[in-house]
Amino acid sequence: MQIIQDISSTKSLCRSLKQEGTLGFVPTMGYLHEGHLSLVKQSVKENPNTIVSIFVNPSQFGQDEDLDTYPRDLERDVALLKECGVEYVFNPNAQTIYPSGFDTWVVPEKLASVLCGKSRPGHFRGVATVVLKLLNITNPDHMYMGIKDYQQLRILKQMASDLHLDCDIVACPIVREADGLAMSSRNSYLNPDERKRALSLYHGLLKARELYEQGERDCGQIIETIKSIIQESGGRIDYIECVDPLTLQSISEAKDDTRMMLAVYFGKTRLIDNMALKA
Amino acid sequence: MQIIQDISSTKSLCRSLKQEGTLGFVPTMGYLHEGHLSLVKQSVKENPNTIVSIFVNPSQFGQDEDLDTYPRDLERDVALLKECGVEYVFNPNAQTIYPSGFDTWVVPEKLASVLCGKSRPGHFRGVATVVLKLLNITNPDHMYMGIKDYQQLRILKQMASDLHLDCDIVACPIVREADGLAMSSRNSYLNPDERKRALSLYHGLLKARELYEQGERDCGQIIETIKSIIQESGGRIDYIECVDPLTLQSISEAKDDTRMMLAVYFGKTRLIDNMALKA
Repeated sequence: MQIIQDISSTKSLCRSLKQEGTLGFVPTMGYLHEGHLSLVKQSVKENPNTIVSIFVNPSQFGQDEDLDTYPRDLERDVALLKECGVEYVFNPNAQTIYPSGFDTWVVPEKLASVLCGKSRPGHFRGVATVVLKLLNITNPDHMYMGIKDYQQLRILKQMASDLHLDCDIVACPIVREADGLAMSSRNSYLNPDERKRALSLYHGLLKARELYEQGERDCGQIIETIKSIIQESGGRIDYIECVDPLTLQSISEAKDDTRMMLAVYFGKTRLIDNMALKA
Repeated sequence: MQIIQDISSTKSLCRSLKQEGTLGFVPTMGYLHEGHLSLVKQSVKENPNTIVSIFVNPSQFGQDEDLDTYPRDLERDVALLKECGVEYVFNPNAQTIYPSGFDTWVVPEKLASVLCGKSRPGHFRGVATVVLKLLNITNPDHMYMGIKDYQQLRILKQMASDLHLDCDIVACPIVREADGLAMSSRNSYLNPDERKRALSLYHGLLKARELYEQGERDCGQIIETIKSIIQESGGRIDYIECVDPLTLQSISEAKDDTRMMLAVYFGKTRLIDNMALKA
């Protein structure tokens, strides 16, 4: 296992790996769970070489967000990646990625003006910037991302198209705990009571699917149903919306590909989840 | 001579050209003059293949600026490039570069907050975005740019470093008319009287160099001297500043590498020029 901190070594490593066939890339902020590992496993299966980045990206955290407390465990992450057959980890520090004089930001516009982009100003600017940097450093053929962060995925696919990147972005299914809670590094913040109550996200989404299956097409009604289930559990709703899967704009009449998107606080922990209306 | 409009053909052309050795790239908005051609000639000399883009980039023009009247003459441009030995021209239309749904901007921050960036909000966002797109389409080894647009050059060099581009940006000297006026496509807007008066830019800069040579180190004094020469000629000053060549921040004590930067209107035509204090 090679853990590399600096950019030029990573660049030349990746250049030589690409001589052997396609290169897969999985960007992460570490503290890996089965969600991440599903991306890693898919990349290992589909490419002769895979590189994983572990970098808690400061520029995607807001001023009052959890940058300092974001969970970290490099040793455990490396062991998990080894088990998956990963041989290369890019683990730069913040100074390497944002040296003094850094001045160039990648800014998604409309797609970042809704949903999480509204609640977390600057978040997707940070995400898009660091991912473009990581892509330009590793230059992979395929990048693997989870549908859990649906808005992020949509923004990065648009970025790849807008900026003519050669990398194909592979969307991978949400991985859930046995009881249905979507996996997230932030789940570790939840106390046992919050953990139980957080299940209302999944239950709300499933109930909405059921309604749609029964013929409900009014997004207002669908949202109200999810809302009442989550509120009953004590969740503080940031947003619940039914959106077009490409533009992320709110829509009123539900269709098969309509995406239900939500962000909800339990205590201080903000969780997100999403699901297509049609199973 | 191949004139290519679409992105994927240009991508695959450039990929195959790079098999033959380094690829040089010169981005232009057309209406070529000797300034552009000096970049082109240097690229042709230094690379087995050169591709030139001709694209009047709408996103770098402000709402009240001269996008619609910006001079265009593709036929003449192509003939001039042919004479220089250029075989490939990328000439996309605006819809190709900014298709519906386009959403990703490259935004220089501090470097774009001063000088022309102050007078032309959004200008350098447009420049950085289109140049990154063009670089990702053509993937050249060297890109040639004029020092005439010094702030643009500085911003794009920073972009290349911040985003880990493999392209080397080559800065080429300002080309001037016989009497000293810096070449610009916008010079064609000047009537004969304005054309004569516009020479005060060059004369002001030369006079400032003389002062510096004689020992003057107070940037305020240096600026005042340029200002009075230009005002005497009837130029309406947008800005005259002495800046650090890397940060572009205004400085008060002149040094050899201090850059004098200016933008001045003659009639409706806005001209820029710049010079290092030390000859």
